[in-house]
Amino acid sequence: MITVREIQSDDLNPQAFIEEQCRLISEQVGASKAVNALSGGVDSSVTTLLAHRALGSRLLTYFIDNGLMREGEPESVVLAMKDLGVPVKLVDAPREFFSALKGKTDPEEKRQAITDTFYKTVFGRLVKESGASHLLQGTIYTDVEETVAGIKRQHNILAQLGIDTEAAFGYKVIEPLIQLRKTGVRAVGQALGMPENMYHRPPFPGPALAARVIGEATPERIALVRKATVVVEEELSEIEAFQYMAILHEDRVTGIRHAKREYGFQIEIRCWDSRDAVTASPTRLTFELLRRMADRVTSEVPGVVSVTYNVTTKPPSTIEAV
Amino acid sequence: MITVREIQSDDLNPQAFIEEQCRLISEQVGASKAVNALSGGVDSSVTTLLAHRALGSRLLTYFIDNGLMREGEPESVVLAMKDLGVPVKLVDAPREFFSALKGKTDPEEKRQAITDTFYKTVFGRLVKESGASHLLQGTIYTDVEETVAGIKRQHNILAQLGIDTEAAFGYKVIEPLIQLRKTGVRAVGQALGMPENMYHRPPFPGPALAARVIGEATPERIALVRKATVVVEEELSEIEAFQYMAILHEDRVTGIRHAKREYGFQIEIRCWDSRDAVTASPTRLTFELLRRMADRVTSEVPGVVSVTYNVTTKPPSTIEAV
Repeated sequence: MITVREIQSDDLNPQAFIEEQCRLISEQVGASKAVNALSGGVDSSVTTLLAHRALGSRLLTYFIDNGLMREGEPESVVLAMKDLGVPVKLVDAPREFFSALKGKTDPEEKRQAITDTFYKTVFGRLVKESGASHLLQGTIYTDVEETVAGIKRQHNILAQLGIDTEAAFGYKVIEPLIQLRKTGVRAVGQALGMPENMYHRPPFPGPALAARVIGEATPERIALVRKATVVVEEELSEIEAFQYMAILHEDRVTGIRHAKREYGFQIEIRCWDSRDAVTASPTRLTFELLRRMADRVTSEVPGVVSVTYNVTTKPPSTIEAV
Repeated sequence: MITVREIQSDDLNPQAFIEEQCRLISEQVGASKAVNALSGGVDSSVTTLLAHRALGSRLLTYFIDNGLMREGEPESVVLAMKDLGVPVKLVDAPREFFSALKGKTDPEEKRQAITDTFYKTVFGRLVKESGASHLLQGTIYTDVEETVAGIKRQHNILAQLGIDTEAAFGYKVIEPLIQLRKTGVRAVGQALGMPENMYHRPPFPGPALAARVIGEATPERIALVRKATVVVEEELSEIEAFQYMAILHEDRVTGIRHAKREYGFQIEIRCWDSRDAVTASPTRLTFELLRRMADRVTSEVPGVVSVTYNVTTKPPSTIEAV
């Protein structure tokens, strides 16, 4: 049993934290190589920067394009890291993920398919080929809490679940951010010289857009929710919010277009105020903004006839629907 | 082909309209009896009052409890008519409707099952037993328009669809409100001495709460959406709106309750500003009111973890989801 002690953001000295974590990473990896997968979220970006500072070219960072990313995301994430001096290898793998997701509608089965494809198929292969001894992961304190509470199964805290990661995957896991919550991670990102749009980037779930589709995540349905995500992220980019998202429902609803009945799709918009994702409230968006998003989504995303805004708190809702 | 001419509300003289329609009903029914089914909505209530004024005890009015009504609705509708001097016979038939709805998830199949059970099984039997020659229906102008446009299949305008209602069901149909839109119907209701809560009552669809459930309308799912409807109607009763509703989705979403993951239900709230249901906009409710409804629905309706508010216009949405 490993006990994780939280560092509250008031107690956090980002510079001291960076030095300490770089020292620990250097110590653990020694003369070997380490590998990590960058998702583009703040947690994995901060982890990548920390590890790059500690290891330099002995860190191999991969960005795996699973076909479930936001519009233009793989390219822009790789470019942003390049600007910070960190080389990232872009791995093209949509076919492997969609093949694993085929026919799956249950949220847990979808997550499992993505996790398995990620670890066992794609990243597992890269790790073996890399010859690295250590894997860096962007696990944060909230992930541990939610896993322990049974709310979420996090793919990236195997150790917390009592899984022997070395035996299971053949490498050792280092989780430099495990004592921090999101605000702490952001402060460290800022201290590492990240641009604000990187350390203030809204969180994005591990299963990416597959978590934004209720039911089967086919390439067609992912393409629809990707278009809706473009609209929602454009319209909400100036809003002070913890996270926002478009969700494609599986339910079909009756609509009317060109004076004809159309049995169409529904997109749900969620936008959350939260400090740390443990509790959250819907952001008080203006009615004009909600109406404009609905107009844009129904005209820019083929087949969508209905748009809703979630007005529930967490709990009893969760941030993501899937 | 029958051509229906609209009477615009500016051109409507409610008293003259009432006299003219009573005269026409008397003329058509002659010394026979007429029968009608009261749904409790403004259209069927106004039709009942008109026909009762024209025919007195030669009008037989039934209220068929299909098990899909709102909380306490069958009793309160019958009582309200009694207060206006109109006797209504309450017919208990939930079992027949739920048996017809079993296993049906397609909106059209659900509507068809309800229509068939209503006409062919329950009301058909009552009509035959009554010995009436005429059936009164509360069809309004918007129903005709939407049927002609192919948006909606209205069960109550068989004649407009070219169905010979006498051959099909053994009686003649009288539709006294067919030239009016909703505002005109309300003006006539007021002139007939209806209490305001009856003529301003929000419209309620023919399939009742079955139209407020996406997917199969089981007794259990109807009970859930009935509870959510109580909350939404209580909270919105003072709001100036054309219509409002709670919809139970079939999609399940992830929630969290008592610190445990719960794969729960979602309720969608719709509240519409509209003149005549042809076009509509979401009502600009306050954020406090939306939040309060979400809190009440998630605490008062078992298993609901998420509540949304629809922000789309009609078109491309429709008023109802099913």
